[in-house]
Amino acid sequence: MAEMIKSKAAIAWGPGQPLSVEEVDVMPPKAGEVRIKVMATGVCHTDAFTLSGEDPEGNFPAILGHEGGGIVEAVGEGVTSVAIGDHVIPLYTPECGECKFCLSGKTNLCGKIRETQGKGLMPDGTSRFYKDGQPIHHYMGCSTFSEYTVLPEISLAKVNKEAPLEEVCLLGCGVTTGMGAVMNTAKVEEGATVAIFGLGGIGLSAIIGATMAKASRIIGIDINDSKFDLARQLGATDCINPKDYDKPIQEVIVELTDGGVDYSFECIGNVDVMRSALECCHKGWGESVIIGVAGAGQEISTRPFQLVTGRVWKGSAFGGVKGRSELPGIVERYLQGEFKLNDFITHTMGLDDINEAFELMHEGKSIRSVIHFDK
Amino acid sequence: MAEMIKSKAAIAWGPGQPLSVEEVDVMPPKAGEVRIKVMATGVCHTDAFTLSGEDPEGNFPAILGHEGGGIVEAVGEGVTSVAIGDHVIPLYTPECGECKFCLSGKTNLCGKIRETQGKGLMPDGTSRFYKDGQPIHHYMGCSTFSEYTVLPEISLAKVNKEAPLEEVCLLGCGVTTGMGAVMNTAKVEEGATVAIFGLGGIGLSAIIGATMAKASRIIGIDINDSKFDLARQLGATDCINPKDYDKPIQEVIVELTDGGVDYSFECIGNVDVMRSALECCHKGWGESVIIGVAGAGQEISTRPFQLVTGRVWKGSAFGGVKGRSELPGIVERYLQGEFKLNDFITHTMGLDDINEAFELMHEGKSIRSVIHFDK
Repeated sequence: MAEMIKSKAAIAWGPGQPLSVEEVDVMPPKAGEVRIKVMATGVCHTDAFTLSGEDPEGNFPAILGHEGGGIVEAVGEGVTSVAIGDHVIPLYTPECGECKFCLSGKTNLCGKIRETQGKGLMPDGTSRFYKDGQPIHHYMGCSTFSEYTVLPEISLAKVNKEAPLEEVCLLGCGVTTGMGAVMNTAKVEEGATVAIFGLGGIGLSAIIGATMAKASRIIGIDINDSKFDLARQLGATDCINPKDYDKPIQEVIVELTDGGVDYSFECIGNVDVMRSALECCHKGWGESVIIGVAGAGQEISTRPFQLVTGRVWKGSAFGGVKGRSELPGIVERYLQGEFKLNDFITHTMGLDDINEAFELMHEGKSIRSVIHFDK
Repeated sequence: MAEMIKSKAAIAWGPGQPLSVEEVDVMPPKAGEVRIKVMATGVCHTDAFTLSGEDPEGNFPAILGHEGGGIVEAVGEGVTSVAIGDHVIPLYTPECGECKFCLSGKTNLCGKIRETQGKGLMPDGTSRFYKDGQPIHHYMGCSTFSEYTVLPEISLAKVNKEAPLEEVCLLGCGVTTGMGAVMNTAKVEEGATVAIFGLGGIGLSAIIGATMAKASRIIGIDINDSKFDLARQLGATDCINPKDYDKPIQEVIVELTDGGVDYSFECIGNVDVMRSALECCHKGWGESVIIGVAGAGQEISTRPFQLVTGRVWKGSAFGGVKGRSELPGIVERYLQGEFKLNDFITHTMGLDDINEAFELMHEGKSIRSVIHFDK
């Protein structure tokens, strides 16, 4: 039976404060739970969003981080799908396989532990993290900014041990979100035209997804020209900066594509851009997928005529990917060289320097910083 | 070769004025055109919308009407798909079979004659209607409020002569729009739950479509209880009046259906109801279809979280039905008794009394008034 273990972790004590790297106590996994040794984790905009205090569902104090890769260190009673030594990717969207959502065949949004996860707790309503006897909240069911973390068994995708965890950790969020939105949610077909708004990690991943889907034209849109080189390198056929035009960007794209694109993707979280993304779609069939997360209380709007004339407005979370069923296969495609991940990794550092990763992100200097726990 | 013919027609001389029944000159059909003798026509809300002056694309003077049934009286040069004596339903959404839209396989919105049709003209840019030498505009490419009218060949669906034109004329707009939105646009499957907002002609047709699709639960929503008897008779399993509740109707429906419906349909043209229709859909997969036409400049809005968590917002025009390919088959299903049309026809009258049909509609007393030209 596993014991409590000491772990170095970056604690978010309160909104707007830098993370504090301290030693915490990590309890052994209970029934149906798994403790993993985190080997690497990406630092994502969603972590920064919650840390800022703007996330209305943020809980403090907490151990943030949700884009990790690790190795199973201990398993709780009844755990059968993973064993000590297995390589795993934590899933903030679990897959229980038995709830209404999982059984629907129509969505990857498992409902099994949604309520406790939203409160920053394990399914039994308690925490596995303590600091000086005080419980610390979990985050998105993952808390990968800790050397050791505990997750429900249903929140772990077991992946091929040959895959480098310091790269495939990015499949735990950003890259899968962008690629999956293109391939799973929109189901972009060969020859289709695509517009991708926002060329950060998600948008670049959407470009990769579009190339894998054999889209004929991939238009990248960003207000920062410095994003265009990498976007082109990954497969964008056109790069457009809205600042270079006097008219709305949707009109520019409609003209450029003889009526609009077949599919568009919003990868920023800006409600005005979401409208542009819808309205640059082709009448009759164009589909726009919202991936970005908007600030609390913000709303999207358009004229209903846009939809009545055949455009479709939808959204995507974790790329519509069912983590336990589908993520291992995406890792295999990575191992077979269908796409690369190191293009996304602009910086690596140890956990002690994690606040630097947030600064680089705020300054727009990084695509992804990856924390290596052995650094 | 056909000659000019005298025809009794209801002319809309200007916005807000009653229609004026007068004799007009109807020119012979030009190449690719067909002149038909209209036997019956429904009077639809869209006619009233344009007559009111609120339709920013309305042209005056015009001969309104777009829900008709007629018999081919003369054909222009090169017409091959219909012959004199054929029974036809005019199509405000034509089907040329060769434009980008028709060839896409993804939409029924043919683009071939959109521009001239929007201006109230035949494809050559002129009119076939004259009054004292002055041209009168066509309307929605149909102008069925006239004993004789001229249409492009691509705007006619040839239907079985056994079908009573004074009933199947309703398939030229309202009934097909509602049924098609359920069966073609949403593709409602057996066992699905459905919410239908607005129990006028379109909403009732959507109920019929839902019963044909074998939906397990069909919830009708209207602020007028008097609509409920017929809705139940046609297949609604629940009828709800938002006025009976203190909270938003979407919350009522979400509770009633353990999380929301699989599909919803907005059949009114009210942007607030469009939002309710989206938000009463089930997380993860619920799809909402906008059928109603909103007033000029009005916008829909919602929180993007609604879409990111798996709901889909789309629209439907003429039920997504390709008129020439699919409408004849719908007429056959009607002849085989799969659905009835006479439930919709609350009033019939001659063309001389057409203004009465508009009054009945404004007062909420009719579902459909049908004009019989032989009355």
